[in-house]
Amino acid sequence: MTLADQPPAAAQVFRTLLTHGPLTRAEVGRRTGLSPGAVTKVATPLLTEGWITELGRPVVERAGRPPTLIAVRAERARFVGVKVTGDQLIGVVVDLAAQPLATGRAALGSRDVSTVVAAIARLVSRLRADAGAVGDGDVHSIGVTVSGDVDGHGGTVQYSPFLDWRRVPLARLVEDATGTPTVLENDVRALTVAELWFGAGVGLSSFALVTVGAGIGCGLVLDGLVVSGAHGVSGEIGHLPVGGSDRVCTCGNTGCVEAVASTHAITDRARRAAADPALTMKEAVRLAHTGHPAVRAVFSQAGHAMGLALASVANLVGPERIIISGEGVASYDLYEEQIRRTFRAQAFGAAGDCDLLVRPLPFEQWARGGAAVAAQRVFAPTVPQLHHP
Amino acid sequence: MTLADQPPAAAQVFRTLLTHGPLTRAEVGRRTGLSPGAVTKVATPLLTEGWITELGRPVVERAGRPPTLIAVRAERARFVGVKVTGDQLIGVVVDLAAQPLATGRAALGSRDVSTVVAAIARLVSRLRADAGAVGDGDVHSIGVTVSGDVDGHGGTVQYSPFLDWRRVPLARLVEDATGTPTVLENDVRALTVAELWFGAGVGLSSFALVTVGAGIGCGLVLDGLVVSGAHGVSGEIGHLPVGGSDRVCTCGNTGCVEAVASTHAITDRARRAAADPALTMKEAVRLAHTGHPAVRAVFSQAGHAMGLALASVANLVGPERIIISGEGVASYDLYEEQIRRTFRAQAFGAAGDCDLLVRPLPFEQWARGGAAVAAQRVFAPTVPQLHHP
Ligand SMILES: [Zn+2]
Ligand SMILES: [Zn+2]
Repeated sequence: MTLADQPPAAAQVFRTLLTHGPLTRAEVGRRTGLSPGAVTKVATPLLTEGWITELGRPVVERAGRPPTLIAVRAERARFVGVKVTGDQLIGVVVDLAAQPLATGRAALGSRDVSTVVAAIARLVSRLRADAGAVGDGDVHSIGVTVSGDVDGHGGTVQYSPFLDWRRVPLARLVEDATGTPTVLENDVRALTVAELWFGAGVGLSSFALVTVGAGIGCGLVLDGLVVSGAHGVSGEIGHLPVGGSDRVCTCGNTGCVEAVASTHAITDRARRAAADPALTMKEAVRLAHTGHPAVRAVFSQAGHAMGLALASVANLVGPERIIISGEGVASYDLYEEQIRRTFRAQAFGAAGDCDLLVRPLPFEQWARGGAAVAAQRVFAPTVPQLHHP
Repeated sequence: MTLADQPPAAAQVFRTLLTHGPLTRAEVGRRTGLSPGAVTKVATPLLTEGWITELGRPVVERAGRPPTLIAVRAERARFVGVKVTGDQLIGVVVDLAAQPLATGRAALGSRDVSTVVAAIARLVSRLRADAGAVGDGDVHSIGVTVSGDVDGHGGTVQYSPFLDWRRVPLARLVEDATGTPTVLENDVRALTVAELWFGAGVGLSSFALVTVGAGIGCGLVLDGLVVSGAHGVSGEIGHLPVGGSDRVCTCGNTGCVEAVASTHAITDRARRAAADPALTMKEAVRLAHTGHPAVRAVFSQAGHAMGLALASVANLVGPERIIISGEGVASYDLYEEQIRRTFRAQAFGAAGDCDLLVRPLPFEQWARGGAAVAAQRVFAPTVPQLHHP
């Protein structure tokens, strides 16, 4: 039996326990809107199959029967999450409560599909061993995440510019190489699931996660649901046409946020500003910190474009919070002020009350997002969106 | 008893009947996910109180007991919707199935709050009479809609530029003047509810409704829910910063869509292009149709800004369809080609598969949106969003 065979109410009870910790049956009822009878009815098979457990009653019994707490049985299953970047793999193995048991990284010698798949299989095997002895909770499934246009339902990387892959059935290939069921998701969307479950999105009904790096991505949660886009595209904040540059974007247009504010674009523009065609991002950051006016202006223009992009998100969908993360956050002090200033100016009315939160997240947290997506499919196999209880 | 006293499952059954017409109890069960027992349990008080009705069984009985169809009893309640513009009121009275029974308009002599409230009360009274004799279904409530920043929950117009109103408790004022419970909503959001229930959004899990006129507004439906914004702001597509003009927007920024593509902005720019400070929108349209290059360019620039704005919506949230409506649609032939061309270029990947549908909607349809919002509150009084079954 898997959780997927259970009625929807069982998934609801399970997710409530997963995100809110041990609760009494009555508390589960209040949070889910289910009757006490319905909670007991769906909890029983979950208890029998070991997905949840009853915690011991308080030692000192008071008058009446004290309520029993029920909780997710974290050791019941494990999940591996792997984030694939252009030059390395980052992996994590977590328990059913998404707590990391082991992490690891592996360099990629090539972006060739079979090389990457073999490297994923080796990393999964290493993580499995590192996580130590198991009872009934072996690795249930693997969640692989890749940046770009990813068909999570079909398990296919449609197009990943950084890997230079097109139509790669990665889920099936990893499944064949590891012998373990594998799901695939866009990396930013997986990180959004991680933030929703156990990050800066917990308890919010809506938030946006914006990641700044080689690309600029965005995950959106509205009414507790991850927005996936009717045609598979959503959160493409990097291709909002905010202007500010004639530089042609990877998508072929000019004026895209990514053409001004991605780490590539900043490096490129800083090279021209400093008249040094070999300048690295690190050197550009140092020059800006020492006060080089033209290089500082490059960061300030990036901040302006980002501020306009964040205001566009706030004006259109009005999230409670926008979380800003990604590699670009390392040099964030150089453009944070400009981002906030432009955001405040362009956000319409109360949309400006949206909380902007800068939050550095290591790649291990992104990998954990992959594991969360895998875990999510256990109890909602056909629904990629997660309804937050 | 009101529907609001019923359990959530009752509202679900009711909405399913409202949007999908007469169904057997088994069909209601399939569409709602409720068990046959649960459907019967919640349907019984709805039948007793006259909110729904059993339709006659087929005359020719086949073997076995033929299933009975249940349907919303449209005559059970009436709702009035009123749209307030800068110079007139547009009203409609509908039955419980949101079918119009009577419509009417009234000119506004002044935008003074008490004048407008008195005019609304007179129009409601006229519509009540025009709708004719009633059984048990007198006007249950009124839904008033206004453009601008509207706090639907509090019943207050926070700021309406076209009426030049700030912090007007319009719901309470209309309630006092008519003696009928009144709800208030932003006009574009109300029209979005109307499109979701019985317009071009029926059956879609996501769509955007973009209205082009004196302002440019947008209603968003994602996963069947109207997006309302955590801070009360959403769909402010008019203030997306797409550039293309140095004209200062009503919000104080430059580069907003509204500063290029609203009917005000087009008229203003056409006046300069034609060197005629008294040019009307109608004359601008005529000049463009006769091939005046500079005036044609004004429409083309508006189309470009709109195309960028629609692509931003598609890139961020990926709706199935974008419906384009509003007064501006009257001259749509002048810029439709440019809108579609820019949209195709800027939409990222499969986001370009989003269907763009031009749909002229008379003000009576906007007023019907107000009535739909009022009807919606009957069975979901505290939840402004509607979950489409
Ligand atoms: Zn682009
Ligand atoms: Zn503006």
